[in-house]
Amino acid sequence: MHSVSRLFRAVWPSVTARLYSSTTSKDISGIFPPIPTPFNADETIAWDKLESNIKKWNEIPLRGYVVQGSTGEYTFMTPQERVEVVRRVKDFTGPGKMLIAGSGCESTRDTITMTREMSSAGAEAVLVVTPCYYKGRMTSSAFIQHYTRVADDSPVPVILYSVPSNTGIDLPPDAIIQLAKHPNIIGIKESGGDIARIGSLVHNTAKDGFQVLSGSASFLYPALSVGCVGGVCALGNVLGGPLCQLEQLVKEGKLNEAKLLQHRLIAVNAAVTTVYGIAGVKKAMEWFGFYGGPTRSPLQSLTESEEKDLRDTFVNSGFL
Amino acid sequence: MHSVSRLFRAVWPSVTARLYSSTTSKDISGIFPPIPTPFNADETIAWDKLESNIKKWNEIPLRGYVVQGSTGEYTFMTPQERVEVVRRVKDFTGPGKMLIAGSGCESTRDTITMTREMSSAGAEAVLVVTPCYYKGRMTSSAFIQHYTRVADDSPVPVILYSVPSNTGIDLPPDAIIQLAKHPNIIGIKESGGDIARIGSLVHNTAKDGFQVLSGSASFLYPALSVGCVGGVCALGNVLGGPLCQLEQLVKEGKLNEAKLLQHRLIAVNAAVTTVYGIAGVKKAMEWFGFYGGPTRSPLQSLTESEEKDLRDTFVNSGFL
Amino acid sequence: MHSVSRLFRAVWPSVTARLYSSTTSKDISGIFPPIPTPFNADETIAWDKLESNIKKWNEIPLRGYVVQGSTGEYTFMTPQERVEVVRRVKDFTGPGKMLIAGSGCESTRDTITMTREMSSAGAEAVLVVTPCYYKGRMTSSAFIQHYTRVADDSPVPVILYSVPSNTGIDLPPDAIIQLAKHPNIIGIKESGGDIARIGSLVHNTAKDGFQVLSGSASFLYPALSVGCVGGVCALGNVLGGPLCQLEQLVKEGKLNEAKLLQHRLIAVNAAVTTVYGIAGVKKAMEWFGFYGGPTRSPLQSLTESEEKDLRDTFVNSGFL
Amino acid sequence: MHSVSRLFRAVWPSVTARLYSSTTSKDISGIFPPIPTPFNADETIAWDKLESNIKKWNEIPLRGYVVQGSTGEYTFMTPQERVEVVRRVKDFTGPGKMLIAGSGCESTRDTITMTREMSSAGAEAVLVVTPCYYKGRMTSSAFIQHYTRVADDSPVPVILYSVPSNTGIDLPPDAIIQLAKHPNIIGIKESGGDIARIGSLVHNTAKDGFQVLSGSASFLYPALSVGCVGGVCALGNVLGGPLCQLEQLVKEGKLNEAKLLQHRLIAVNAAVTTVYGIAGVKKAMEWFGFYGGPTRSPLQSLTESEEKDLRDTFVNSGFL
Repeated sequence: MHSVSRLFRAVWPSVTARLYSSTTSKDISGIFPPIPTPFNADETIAWDKLESNIKKWNEIPLRGYVVQGSTGEYTFMTPQERVEVVRRVKDFTGPGKMLIAGSGCESTRDTITMTREMSSAGAEAVLVVTPCYYKGRMTSSAFIQHYTRVADDSPVPVILYSVPSNTGIDLPPDAIIQLAKHPNIIGIKESGGDIARIGSLVHNTAKDGFQVLSGSASFLYPALSVGCVGGVCALGNVLGGPLCQLEQLVKEGKLNEAKLLQHRLIAVNAAVTTVYGIAGVKKAMEWFGFYGGPTRSPLQSLTESEEKDLRDTFVNSGFL
Repeated sequence: MHSVSRLFRAVWPSVTARLYSSTTSKDISGIFPPIPTPFNADETIAWDKLESNIKKWNEIPLRGYVVQGSTGEYTFMTPQERVEVVRRVKDFTGPGKMLIAGSGCESTRDTITMTREMSSAGAEAVLVVTPCYYKGRMTSSAFIQHYTRVADDSPVPVILYSVPSNTGIDLPPDAIIQLAKHPNIIGIKESGGDIARIGSLVHNTAKDGFQVLSGSASFLYPALSVGCVGGVCALGNVLGGPLCQLEQLVKEGKLNEAKLLQHRLIAVNAAVTTVYGIAGVKKAMEWFGFYGGPTRSPLQSLTESEEKDLRDTFVNSGFL
Repeated sequence: MHSVSRLFRAVWPSVTARLYSSTTSKDISGIFPPIPTPFNADETIAWDKLESNIKKWNEIPLRGYVVQGSTGEYTFMTPQERVEVVRRVKDFTGPGKMLIAGSGCESTRDTITMTREMSSAGAEAVLVVTPCYYKGRMTSSAFIQHYTRVADDSPVPVILYSVPSNTGIDLPPDAIIQLAKHPNIIGIKESGGDIARIGSLVHNTAKDGFQVLSGSASFLYPALSVGCVGGVCALGNVLGGPLCQLEQLVKEGKLNEAKLLQHRLIAVNAAVTTVYGIAGVKKAMEWFGFYGGPTRSPLQSLTESEEKDLRDTFVNSGFL
Repeated sequence: MHSVSRLFRAVWPSVTARLYSSTTSKDISGIFPPIPTPFNADETIAWDKLESNIKKWNEIPLRGYVVQGSTGEYTFMTPQERVEVVRRVKDFTGPGKMLIAGSGCESTRDTITMTREMSSAGAEAVLVVTPCYYKGRMTSSAFIQHYTRVADDSPVPVILYSVPSNTGIDLPPDAIIQLAKHPNIIGIKESGGDIARIGSLVHNTAKDGFQVLSGSASFLYPALSVGCVGGVCALGNVLGGPLCQLEQLVKEGKLNEAKLLQHRLIAVNAAVTTVYGIAGVKKAMEWFGFYGGPTRSPLQSLTESEEKDLRDTFVNSGFL
């Protein structure tokens, strides 16, 4: 089956791509928090806290959840744990919310296996991070081969995921533009923050119905301005409401309000990403009624002074 | 005189800053091309071509000109040449257009001297690039001392200039926020392209009346969205009209048109900056009726295939 | 038991460290190839080829083998496969050859588990790569906690592994110097190639009996000059004999010969590391009587022209 | 004249290169301090201190002096000052010591002019730093054109100078190997510290009689091991004697002593280069009987705690 589909695309690539995009491409617009995995003090998964967190997020007009992404500490989980977390989240997810699961592994074969399992566990789409360990050989050609094989096999749509602050690799634009033509690759989470690159990707993939998601709240408004359809934002775990509000302000053309809200979000976003990372997300979540808890080692909890600094940032920005 | 002013600011810094900013800060909003220096085939300055180019730009609703910035090949000019170019441009500049001169040198003492000379030559403000050779020691403290001494002495307002693609240095945000309080430092040309950084700078310096200019056309619209007042864009030498139009579309809230125009500008902007640099700017200028001519060595002219690729980019984007 | 040992070290760290180092530290001097995992055309492990390769290497005066390191494509293997490869290599390893297994995972808990399993499978020491996904939070403190917990638990000695070209992280010198005092951390494979850093590490850990291994053949001689005790070199898979000869020449003080051999090795080493990576190692192995075979995807085989270039490099350096 | 010489080389490049190298190439082996420019408190040049420093260095078996290199704060000097410093140093230089002057400027035309003036002022060779401001366009081809034009015109031999920590650019190996064939380009000061690169450069240029100088004391011994002929080392201003001794130990084959001395030099070298830079060199010089004095702004003097840390480093390494 796959070889036929591949052949078909090889002959009339733009035709099939257009057909797919106009008819079947799943809409991923909106705000998605990449949810953290809650742990108990002994680093085992706190299933009850996962449930209570999801139920609380269900009340916010979020578009859905990204599960087992970078903020989910997926690299610290066994393959079995990764799938089990998705299965549980599926049970708790409110109606109308989309579930996207991170299924990327370093090898193509492991990614294919994990993608199938995530689909079986209830994921409606998968987010596939760039393999990154053998950086020197991860050429555009290698990425195109990898993602094509994964997307050819995947039962659900594939979303590309470029996050250079973790992987040290920026998925090359020529590979993205090529992959956007694949009928089962529907979008990208772009976390690099180069807004010209984002605008260029939107421009060059628009005809394929490809959807670009901002990978951070720190540039959500400008990203929407140049054509992103939403965002997967770690800060959405803490301030889901304000992020949905920012999206709404832009839609309504209330640009000055959007600008001022975006300004306030930048400092708190930096605090829970580049500065304090997942430990910062988890700590801040606690101030807003969620369960945060510890990270797995080697990630470390915040020191007292780091926690104070984080809190001051939220207070100074008017969110606490 | 300077020591009194310094003392005064040391005691009531915020007061003086606020006074200055609310009363005297020069408005630098709008689009400025950083004009190239035209050379003859033997690398001497083509004064007649400088005049004809300026007269042509005078007809476009540009806010003014940046003279002897990076695109002006200032590092290839003798100190005498740098000043003489500014003096000549002054003569040709149309009414209502502002003249900003690049006066940065590696040492503080040379920068002070050059700033005075640029002012005498007719510059209404100076753009001062970060010293960058001794990167390892260019701390925030060193930058604050450098720019404070320059601004204390300068007869005209000072605009900071951070351009990491050339200097390898990003002016640290804490230094910028501190310097924004100086009554004679009125803005920054920010060429790094990190839109979250730009939004954060606008946010943290707004109370000082500090003005942030986008340093590139590739992110002009998102930069305006987060609060920039204009741009100093190499592409403005070639496509001054469309850049002014983009600014206008944003002002009028025609956001979809702004987005589509921004998209078209990204590829051509990359072609005349990161890809082909000044030789690309000069070549493209020729297609729009300006004099381009050669660069000084070691910059090299475009090869035939590079020129073809550049032209294709302008054609594909619909500007030719 | 571990808590007592930890307490003891906390009180008299230097005493215990010195006792251990002078009495029990395993000698890891010499040349180790980090062996590739041979695959069949369908990407399953070619166990027969693993055996034949090992038997051929057994005839060279190599000090031993590093199994499931970066060249072993460990990130492409399931946990079960990683252990099984080590178990099989153990069976084939000739007398007197040391077996070191890569046991690093992103989380501390997985690394502890994998380390125990590698020990059970026959590893005499483990090589533990730096966790690297959450780069922004991998502070010295996080590394010290991670490696201390692993080494406290490990039944066999631990060797640190810093390989920035893959991980994007250089293990900080202060962390290394601190960890060198741990009685169960005996050395480091240093792949970064900064020879001043290597000299400094040797200097600052010598009193602890800590052993530094060059992580590349391209700087093996200078590394030995500043005090490294050997090397873990991908090129050792292809040219084990010449690498052992280089070590011998240095020991015998035949410095001009050492220099000339080192010179010849640099180009071929680059070809099988930074330029063509594991696919290059495997291809070159075939020219010297070993089984190479394919890599797992997304790594790709060499193109015809890449293969020709690789072969030319070996020919021009006089090894073919 | 130059066009004839160029033609000749175009026809029989290897022949002329070999002739030149075997007959006329100036020997630049040995240790050269890149001397700092001494300033008075008001940042004017302290000519008397320049004289007294040189006379003190004359007593050490240094090979000669590099004047107006990076440590000489050349980027802070006017063109007139650069030449005048060289002229004065010429007067004070002891018999048998070679004087090399830094003559690099950003443009080819300025570099040619400065090179002639440095030769007239008494320089026996010039050190020409890579132009670096327009990084994106400094291709191998641009460097080859630049250096060829400078060397064709220069009355004295040219030494290439690659110092990425200041310039952000590593002169590409293919350009170096090509330029090494030019009869008037005799060597390179290589400051990058990648010892495999250094070994490779020695290997690939040996047939041209090209000489590679280590650009730092932190890897002087390993650099000599792989074939460097000496070093231009900022630390040589402070510890000229020990550096000459290290060179001698290597020549005499006293490798263990060389290793131990190299180890002691690494920490103090880092302190006067990457950590504290020129202010560190100048401060340390004072402890060894030289005049140090202030730097020009924006470089700043050491704080009290920095000075204490610097001194501790020299004490702990046994040099104070």
